[in-house]
Amino acid sequence: MTQQQVNTAQTETQTVAGFRVAGVSCGLKGTDALDFALFLSDEPCVAAGIFTTNTVKAAPVLFDMENLANARNGYRAVVVNTRCANACTGETGLQNAREMATLAANALGYRADQVLVMSTGVIGTYLPMDKIARGVDLASNALGDDWDAAARAIMTTDTKPKFAQNAVTLPDGRQFHVAGVCKGAGMIAPNMATMLSVLVTDAALTPEDAQLALEMVAKQTYNRIVVDGDMSTNDTVLLLANGASGVALEAAAFADALQPVAKQLSQSVVRDGEGVTKFITLTVTGADDDATARQIANTIATSPLVKTAFYGGDANWGRMVAAAGRAGVAFAPEQATLQIAAGEDVEPQLTLFANGTAAHYDERAAATIMQSPAISVWLDCGIGQGQAVVYTCDLSHDYVSINGHYRS
Amino acid sequence: MTQQQVNTAQTETQTVAGFRVAGVSCGLKGTDALDFALFLSDEPCVAAGIFTTNTVKAAPVLFDMENLANARNGYRAVVVNTRCANACTGETGLQNAREMATLAANALGYRADQVLVMSTGVIGTYLPMDKIARGVDLASNALGDDWDAAARAIMTTDTKPKFAQNAVTLPDGRQFHVAGVCKGAGMIAPNMATMLSVLVTDAALTPEDAQLALEMVAKQTYNRIVVDGDMSTNDTVLLLANGASGVALEAAAFADALQPVAKQLSQSVVRDGEGVTKFITLTVTGADDDATARQIANTIATSPLVKTAFYGGDANWGRMVAAAGRAGVAFAPEQATLQIAAGEDVEPQLTLFANGTAAHYDERAAATIMQSPAISVWLDCGIGQGQAVVYTCDLSHDYVSINGHYRS
Repeated sequence: MTQQQVNTAQTETQTVAGFRVAGVSCGLKGTDALDFALFLSDEPCVAAGIFTTNTVKAAPVLFDMENLANARNGYRAVVVNTRCANACTGETGLQNAREMATLAANALGYRADQVLVMSTGVIGTYLPMDKIARGVDLASNALGDDWDAAARAIMTTDTKPKFAQNAVTLPDGRQFHVAGVCKGAGMIAPNMATMLSVLVTDAALTPEDAQLALEMVAKQTYNRIVVDGDMSTNDTVLLLANGASGVALEAAAFADALQPVAKQLSQSVVRDGEGVTKFITLTVTGADDDATARQIANTIATSPLVKTAFYGGDANWGRMVAAAGRAGVAFAPEQATLQIAAGEDVEPQLTLFANGTAAHYDERAAATIMQSPAISVWLDCGIGQGQAVVYTCDLSHDYVSINGHYRS
Repeated sequence: MTQQQVNTAQTETQTVAGFRVAGVSCGLKGTDALDFALFLSDEPCVAAGIFTTNTVKAAPVLFDMENLANARNGYRAVVVNTRCANACTGETGLQNAREMATLAANALGYRADQVLVMSTGVIGTYLPMDKIARGVDLASNALGDDWDAAARAIMTTDTKPKFAQNAVTLPDGRQFHVAGVCKGAGMIAPNMATMLSVLVTDAALTPEDAQLALEMVAKQTYNRIVVDGDMSTNDTVLLLANGASGVALEAAAFADALQPVAKQLSQSVVRDGEGVTKFITLTVTGADDDATARQIANTIATSPLVKTAFYGGDANWGRMVAAAGRAGVAFAPEQATLQIAAGEDVEPQLTLFANGTAAHYDERAAATIMQSPAISVWLDCGIGQGQAVVYTCDLSHDYVSINGHYRS
């Protein structure tokens, strides 16, 4: 296969056969900012989904989970609103989620169980159903190929729209496509960290293969990002596959095509995380097993002291080693080595810590690396073969400002 | 028993018979700020200790643990330095910790194994032994009853010295005393969150009762405070009991006397936490069991989104409920109730959340409570009998400033 990735939310052409999208403003944000999105397939779709593991699940999450439990194909649309998470809203919230699907189904000429819904925003307030109805009305009349508008319409504290796509040409010349949007910014935890993401493809998949591919890919992408360690009540990733390309794929082959889209989207959530000034790739190797490596990586990535040191541009390996030591798994500083480099997808440049103590390194060289906007860190535990990579960021004054004053 | 607590670090008189203390400046901080402390008993002491559970343990922690494993009585002194944690310093670090004890032992006329040591400060640098020697020399010549100086001499990013004491009169008229100092400020986690604390008493205790009482009390005090969720490599609480009062006590009776001192010291760590503007008492009830309640309380108390909402004075119950939902234990929002009040040791004033959704409350009343410097929060899970109380704080711009630019 050859793959082509587009690294921009600006797209000129319709990327995935048979899908139309819209992003509109229905007054949820109280301005003319885009705040409501619709994703529609002209053909019935197989659907797959992964959802927050928080025991407090928002109404749209419960609605989608129940919907997907009943059938895995025949889906037509995903509707998304911002500003209100429809979480902690009880039976009224569930009725509102159903009503949102019904409104969209009626406007589009389908059944409510062919529509999936997503909400993001403040917890504990009720969906303003008049505005939702207006959003459905406006969006269903604005359907087209403006993925940028759709990506913008699901943003909350995001500063940039998040779109990615991939076109794959098979050896026999046939093509299929994958595209997706994502929103993030805060409440981004090591597991199911997406907030919201809608993925579409014109490949033909069975429901089982769609779900399997989505889970395989999420494990390496959406579940590998850490902004603040908090986990939302609304996290949802949905995949719609309409088969319009005529290319039928099994899970592994489709996962290969989905992976770069999901990776780009999930990393863009970290890059655009609340108050983020630095993008950090943290690789833990030599742990007891992969789960242990993940535990160590997540503990380092969620440590406020580590994150503020990254913000300050301080090569404070002591905080990283101390965080590893409290991860609750096997870790012995005498066997560990910690290295850093400026950039992503690079080789280690400087060893900060080895043999249980500070390595001999140039503090100015370390400071130069720590002040670059992208930093890679490698912690080898020297124990076993377990490894994990997580993508994370610093903790800045702006994170505190944003979350001290935004009701989410 | 009657108990008298003194709520100030200013003490006029020697509080615990047979103990002398000193706080001096030996140049560790590069100014004339106090940076080195000595605690001495004129009688041999029973000693008890609890230590960080981080697998990365500083040299002084390893030295004390080994020392206490060999003998539990005959102790004479605790020496404490700031500015250097002597952590991640390998074999040299262990030699330096031993040397620090030996220097003090020689100056005081005892053996090195009668001395315990504590260090706090930057991880990964070596103890400047010339300054440590100067500190021992100065401190052993300054011994007296200036507990305020001793409390100041163990401060790092603390803004206030932390001292507490308790005098207990038994029904038969006999008296005994407990006193202690503490330092904290950052790297304060739900378990063994102390950084450093030295406790002394003139009660007579067996080594076993001393250890048992210390562990009983720590569970409800030092292990119940959360500033940032990070755990230090150096956390140590030491208790010395010299029996000078002639009052022999068993563990439970002594724990009653120790409790208010440890509570005041540990809470003062939260109150003086890095960048703290609000002191929060979080009570979780109705959980499956006490461990579950603690898990929920700790998850809420370490949530950056919850902490920034407290900083912003926002009654954002949604973030607290969402944090409870990701604690990894049984929690159902439909059964939970969340209440708040201004102040400590108060009754609930306002119900924010009940029956799975927002309660009907006055947003202005909620905002008034959330803007007070002390806030109490009650989360009843409505499931079982488990309960836990933790003491925590907000996450402010100053926390980021302090930790973005302080190498610790």
